[in-house]
Amino acid sequence: MNALYQPISALTLLRQLEGNEQARRHYLRECLARMHALDPQLNALTAVTDEASLLAASDAAHGPLGGLPVLLKDIIDTRDLPTAYGSAIYQGHRPAADAAVATLLRRQGAALAGKTVTCEFAYMAAVPTRNPSAPARTAGGSSSGSAAAVAAGFAPFALGTQTGGSTIRPAAFCGIAGYKPSFGMLPTAGIKCFSWSFDTVGLFAAGVRDAAYLAQALSGQRLAVPSPLPGAPVFGVPDSYPWGAPSANAARALASAIRAIERAGGTVRPLRLAPWMAALSDAHATIQGYESSRTLGYEYDRHRDQLTSKLRDFLARAGAIDTGTYLAACAQAEAARGQCNDWFGGIDALLTPSAPDEAPEGLATTGDPAFNRNWTLLGTPCVSVPGLHGDHGAPLGIQVIGRRGDDARTLASAAFVENALLRHA
Amino acid sequence: MNALYQPISALTLLRQLEGNEQARRHYLRECLARMHALDPQLNALTAVTDEASLLAASDAAHGPLGGLPVLLKDIIDTRDLPTAYGSAIYQGHRPAADAAVATLLRRQGAALAGKTVTCEFAYMAAVPTRNPSAPARTAGGSSSGSAAAVAAGFAPFALGTQTGGSTIRPAAFCGIAGYKPSFGMLPTAGIKCFSWSFDTVGLFAAGVRDAAYLAQALSGQRLAVPSPLPGAPVFGVPDSYPWGAPSANAARALASAIRAIERAGGTVRPLRLAPWMAALSDAHATIQGYESSRTLGYEYDRHRDQLTSKLRDFLARAGAIDTGTYLAACAQAEAARGQCNDWFGGIDALLTPSAPDEAPEGLATTGDPAFNRNWTLLGTPCVSVPGLHGDHGAPLGIQVIGRRGDDARTLASAAFVENALLRHA
Repeated sequence: MNALYQPISALTLLRQLEGNEQARRHYLRECLARMHALDPQLNALTAVTDEASLLAASDAAHGPLGGLPVLLKDIIDTRDLPTAYGSAIYQGHRPAADAAVATLLRRQGAALAGKTVTCEFAYMAAVPTRNPSAPARTAGGSSSGSAAAVAAGFAPFALGTQTGGSTIRPAAFCGIAGYKPSFGMLPTAGIKCFSWSFDTVGLFAAGVRDAAYLAQALSGQRLAVPSPLPGAPVFGVPDSYPWGAPSANAARALASAIRAIERAGGTVRPLRLAPWMAALSDAHATIQGYESSRTLGYEYDRHRDQLTSKLRDFLARAGAIDTGTYLAACAQAEAARGQCNDWFGGIDALLTPSAPDEAPEGLATTGDPAFNRNWTLLGTPCVSVPGLHGDHGAPLGIQVIGRRGDDARTLASAAFVENALLRHA
Repeated sequence: MNALYQPISALTLLRQLEGNEQARRHYLRECLARMHALDPQLNALTAVTDEASLLAASDAAHGPLGGLPVLLKDIIDTRDLPTAYGSAIYQGHRPAADAAVATLLRRQGAALAGKTVTCEFAYMAAVPTRNPSAPARTAGGSSSGSAAAVAAGFAPFALGTQTGGSTIRPAAFCGIAGYKPSFGMLPTAGIKCFSWSFDTVGLFAAGVRDAAYLAQALSGQRLAVPSPLPGAPVFGVPDSYPWGAPSANAARALASAIRAIERAGGTVRPLRLAPWMAALSDAHATIQGYESSRTLGYEYDRHRDQLTSKLRDFLARAGAIDTGTYLAACAQAEAARGQCNDWFGGIDALLTPSAPDEAPEGLATTGDPAFNRNWTLLGTPCVSVPGLHGDHGAPLGIQVIGRRGDDARTLASAAFVENALLRHA
């Protein structure tokens, strides 16, 4: 871990700053100073709120988020900060309104501190963002800047999105907590749409309990992780992965997490995923492609030369998917959403690696969403738990997956894993 | 029927104009002339494309829509035309991109001819739009201008939306065909969101076959109504309406439609709707309120004084709905979506009045969505079939409702009703 960059727990901050206006304002100034000093190397940010506006917003804040600064992925519309969706087409664009989640953040007492780098329209084009926990490696994508900024301590919270693996993967790569709620929990109105069947707001924080606290504030659901934890959970671990095997590196990390969980009193059982999980990745590709060729139709038809070749080629292929193929994939997805509930009988959550390996070296790719996209399609809550490192010294995440709608249990189970890794890994 | 205003069938136009560039350009100029001459009285339009741009778009068009002009409800984003969402807040707003349905229209050969009056954010505030088929009455809402413009012959097609009854109701009031497809068939990306669980793109045309043709072009599904029709459908008619009775006026119209259907060889059976349909209207109100207090959160928090008191008061009440109540309503809706499929065993479609009565007099209200909102919640396809008039001489629609996903059968059944009304009513 690079000592310059250090994530900071929102819950710790809230305890330290409560009722201490001077300390809160000092902390906000420190965040701004860190961003201005360190982001030229990290490239996590696209815009930063000016000091006077940030302090004023924080001073005026009421609610559980206590005036803390929050950063937003730059596909989330903000009236007061430019929003370019990671695209040359929208350089300098100022939306006419805030996205619904930006409003919810303000209503819950957050101060919007800036915007973070996203892959172009949250797809997979390369970004300049470096990984604070492994500076020679990618921070992942597409919520690259949100993960990197929280890992670097620029802010205790950031929002991103996930359509394939865009929250869980960068959180794992950067060594912080990432949480993709059950599909539909948080509103996507005012977020640039890629795939309406899959786009999900994602949360980044230093630890699982921090992320759960933010999710509770935004959703109005009881999601904060209780202390002490309600009990030792039972986890299921797939005996194989129909979409492809993890690296030996990631498999070793999962084995070490399992040992830590068992030492902490948790139970881990083997579980067999259905073979149709392999085909489900194809259904994901079909649905995402068909929908994005519509949601990005204006950009493709009118500004094709300003798209990266990666996205242009993807949309060209996507445009050839016919409606019958799409509807068949939707039916397959709907059936799978019902069937996958069976796996959660008698267990609290599933465990898998968050990604096939540590973050890839360099900035040419943002990594592989293979371990994430099926769960995005299924709409299940997923948490990437930090605490482990791979053979090359970069972070590896453990993905905790729950039944759709069972977010409180999933977060509590993830907090159990996080504790176990701290004490026993 | 006012002779000045007359809807025009798109399918008839396509046959007449095919291969005749001069006639097509003449028709477009005629549409523009009608709009400029008659809209000062009708108040259906918020913006009209200039002649040179419209002719150029039509000349360049390829695809099944044959360069025909289409009008869009002004909550649908358009890059080249102002989009104000019916709100003082957004006067003169120019979105950065087209909505996905606008792109689909262009890709299928439509020429975007203008924007139409919408209730403020597609809720229920009064609008100045007059009903071309009953000028002393409202055109309905919230897709007021789209229905009125098609009824007035300004264009053969218009798009609107429905969250409660905003497509079926104005279509019925104006005496044209309105079609609300199965939830999710057409993309809502780039349309100002009110309620993400309910917002549905709606289609307006002179007749059912015209609407089905447009739906096929936009969706890629086989929805065009075959000629001759596949056979005489079996309809179910509720023996009572759990959400409240129709007027005697509307009940007589339905009885007359039933007689016409039977004379045309169709079968009509009584059917009992479940009593929970009454409570479902409350679930609709809960879900719509909870979601709109988030999607319109920016406008409510930042521009409250520019909202109408109707919407402001609605959003104030909506803001008090707690998450638990919302989640219970969502669960109730989900269960109802499964249970309602039972009603379609052995029948092709249900029949009800499209609205409780003829359009209300005056412009103070846009009418009552009681006969529509449950079907919007259920996500079922609904078609308002024109052809009948009430005791006061204003149009009344017959609503044909199908099983979710069964849009082709629903449209064919609605076309059967339309034929029956033409020949036997």
